[in-house]
Amino acid sequence: MTEKEQFSEKILSLLQEKKYSALQKYMDTLNPADIAECMEDLLDDGEIAEEELPRIFRLLPKELASDTFTEMDPEFQEKLIDAFSDKELAELMGDMFLDDTVDVIEEMPANVVKRILKNVDSETRKSINQVLNYPEDSAGSIMTIEYVDLRPSMTVREAFARIRQTGVDKETIYICYIIGPTRKLLGLVSVRELLLADDDTVLRDIMETNIISVSTQDDREDVANLFAKYSFGALPVVDKENRLVGIVTVDDAIDVLQEEATEDIEKMAAITPSEHPYLRAKTWEIWKQRIPWLLLLMVSATFTGMIITGFENALAAQAALMAFIPMLMDTGGNSGSQASVTVIRNLSLGEVEFSDIGKVLWKELRVSLLCGATLAAVSFVKIMLIDGLLMKNPGITVTVAVVVCLTLLLTVVAAKLVGCSLPLLAKRVGFDPAVMASPFITTIVDALSLILYFRIATDILHL
Amino acid sequence: MTEKEQFSEKILSLLQEKKYSALQKYMDTLNPADIAECMEDLLDDGEIAEEELPRIFRLLPKELASDTFTEMDPEFQEKLIDAFSDKELAELMGDMFLDDTVDVIEEMPANVVKRILKNVDSETRKSINQVLNYPEDSAGSIMTIEYVDLRPSMTVREAFARIRQTGVDKETIYICYIIGPTRKLLGLVSVRELLLADDDTVLRDIMETNIISVSTQDDREDVANLFAKYSFGALPVVDKENRLVGIVTVDDAIDVLQEEATEDIEKMAAITPSEHPYLRAKTWEIWKQRIPWLLLLMVSATFTGMIITGFENALAAQAALMAFIPMLMDTGGNSGSQASVTVIRNLSLGEVEFSDIGKVLWKELRVSLLCGATLAAVSFVKIMLIDGLLMKNPGITVTVAVVVCLTLLLTVVAAKLVGCSLPLLAKRVGFDPAVMASPFITTIVDALSLILYFRIATDILHL
Repeated sequence: MTEKEQFSEKILSLLQEKKYSALQKYMDTLNPADIAECMEDLLDDGEIAEEELPRIFRLLPKELASDTFTEMDPEFQEKLIDAFSDKELAELMGDMFLDDTVDVIEEMPANVVKRILKNVDSETRKSINQVLNYPEDSAGSIMTIEYVDLRPSMTVREAFARIRQTGVDKETIYICYIIGPTRKLLGLVSVRELLLADDDTVLRDIMETNIISVSTQDDREDVANLFAKYSFGALPVVDKENRLVGIVTVDDAIDVLQEEATEDIEKMAAITPSEHPYLRAKTWEIWKQRIPWLLLLMVSATFTGMIITGFENALAAQAALMAFIPMLMDTGGNSGSQASVTVIRNLSLGEVEFSDIGKVLWKELRVSLLCGATLAAVSFVKIMLIDGLLMKNPGITVTVAVVVCLTLLLTVVAAKLVGCSLPLLAKRVGFDPAVMASPFITTIVDALSLILYFRIATDILHL
Repeated sequence: MTEKEQFSEKILSLLQEKKYSALQKYMDTLNPADIAECMEDLLDDGEIAEEELPRIFRLLPKELASDTFTEMDPEFQEKLIDAFSDKELAELMGDMFLDDTVDVIEEMPANVVKRILKNVDSETRKSINQVLNYPEDSAGSIMTIEYVDLRPSMTVREAFARIRQTGVDKETIYICYIIGPTRKLLGLVSVRELLLADDDTVLRDIMETNIISVSTQDDREDVANLFAKYSFGALPVVDKENRLVGIVTVDDAIDVLQEEATEDIEKMAAITPSEHPYLRAKTWEIWKQRIPWLLLLMVSATFTGMIITGFENALAAQAALMAFIPMLMDTGGNSGSQASVTVIRNLSLGEVEFSDIGKVLWKELRVSLLCGATLAAVSFVKIMLIDGLLMKNPGITVTVAVVVCLTLLLTVVAAKLVGCSLPLLAKRVGFDPAVMASPFITTIVDALSLILYFRIATDILHL
């Protein structure tokens, strides 16, 4: 039994024995992410009824309740909100951080959003609307406005007093931002530096002024990559006039990195990314994620069919050639996706840019010649020994083997060059490079390899 | 010009004008990760000679120097170490965190490792050897031993005194660990809680005792996933007797998540993962990463060739069937990799386990029937209208279209079922599920789809 299953079982047994105060005490020892997961699992497996959810939830102490709510799936959040009174909803929203509230709102239907906005104070409502206005996938959309701001003239003692006074409601207190009269970002200071400094030191003298900040409009993946590069705990978000408007914290950056990696992986496998977890997604939702690409790629495979039909007579004359078509297509596809996937991942990590296209092409040309030559050599030996001598296939001649191996070499080179350049070109024109992965490359390379094959066969075998 | 190029240009121009003190001042305003990148770029592009590297490096102030060294690629670290005197090396190692030192050692050749170990104090040497003994990819191998430990009987005032006294050398001071006489982990307390508590409060009364900890032997990816789940800043690492031996910090967890995602993506594209950055890797290194899989998959494609050869006569009788082979193979391959990649990613994220195999198969069965039916219907219309009416291909009959579409439906179902179950089975027997991705599935599905195609064709068309 996993740890998670133990938690769920314990909660369930306490619930069934109606030992609510023991349940309350037990849940207080758990982490909010675990409580959320247990409740979801119990509901999914039909162990508890939906009406029980708000009842269990009300047992949680204030702060744990809001943290647990934040960790839950939107569908359960919606069920809880529907069960809450306006007063309960207002309390819950008051305990949540602004970035989490915005995340919830983004997933809710219009009537629930209305109810949430009705039940927060007017200042929070204003901030929510502001954050909601930032483009999806921008730094503004993932930032929080709960940070500690200090003034340059404050002493370390005054700074600590302000942290103690306001820090409870802040997402992180460990990096404090020092701002001027118009909220211009002047510097930052960490609690570590404050602790090591003398109480009477003025912040102006110890603050870090070479600050790496991001703009509200920056792409959230680029922002998350900064965390991976620099080991920050938080990054300040500023507007065009360098005024501090919020911060992005490292825990949100991790979520972005995980989500973006998952999205890239899905796109590379010709799946439209979805927000729903796989095991909880409905059949038609998964169908909707997958069918457009399958259809598109199936229809484009028509061209390969047309190429084969065009060479039907040549193929009939040399039936042995047919047997190598799947091998040539697959090897070309695999070679191409090796190159495209490498470039796509390096683009995501910010290690390769469009301006590197010359370097990338030159590298892939050399690699593909080396790979192609190896494959052609092995293939030649294999065809002559296994297909020719061992299987005694009468159609296998040295000339046929040469045609296959020459095609193999050229296909691998073409596949790798196409595979590495398409994602870079896609990025250049503003498309998502990840879409240019295996399935797309495979379709192009299939057509290329068949054309090469039949051209070489016609020329060498005089078909 | 990017920000990075501006940094490099400025460094280069100051260097060429021999303005060393201005260069020193300028680099002091930069982040270590940026300095490391600039030096590497300047060396790569041949703008500065290798002998210049240690000269520039010596301009950096102590702490910035060790941070910059940590951020550099192993090949440049080795060059620097070679240029350093024993005294310089000892100083550098003294300024580095233990986990970073271990990372460096893991990449160095034996003689350099010997020199490093000779130049650290005996206590550090002991710790290094201990961490080096943990299995690769374990929590022990990524942990650091520089953390703040406190006693339960301490007051908040005493805790702050200890943090101030020892905190300079600790990787994080924001989470402090409370240990008993035998270093047993009793609880933890955050600096936030310490700041908000009264100075005379005893730690025992405020410490968190429900602690999520990991073991030295745990897989580093599982540990990193805990950070994604729980938003921690650090996680304690304990031995079998629950004694605190180290901590893993969030910045290392981010690196692990990024590396593991890259490795999974590479494996999914049939590439053996490498530690060298793509643009800096040598041609034969990339060849070595890619060729084993290409060879393996090429040789396994022999079976598809044999299947085609076996049905050569049937194909000759119904030449129109040939043209649909690439479409059937590609659509099968794409359908299968959609399922396998989804399952592989969910396994990595810890969202799906082997025990879910029943749920997964049932889900994929329904999705594949829906996808297969859609594709078959569209394909039927396409074949009759485009291939039959528009292209006037005489070989296209309703029966041929039925054979193709029926094969398509069955191939999609088989591909998705194989695609979703193979990664789960691989995980079960201890193989890496990521290897069971597109190329592998494609090869199996190719053979499956051809067998299905020829069987159905023989039965329906009586070939």
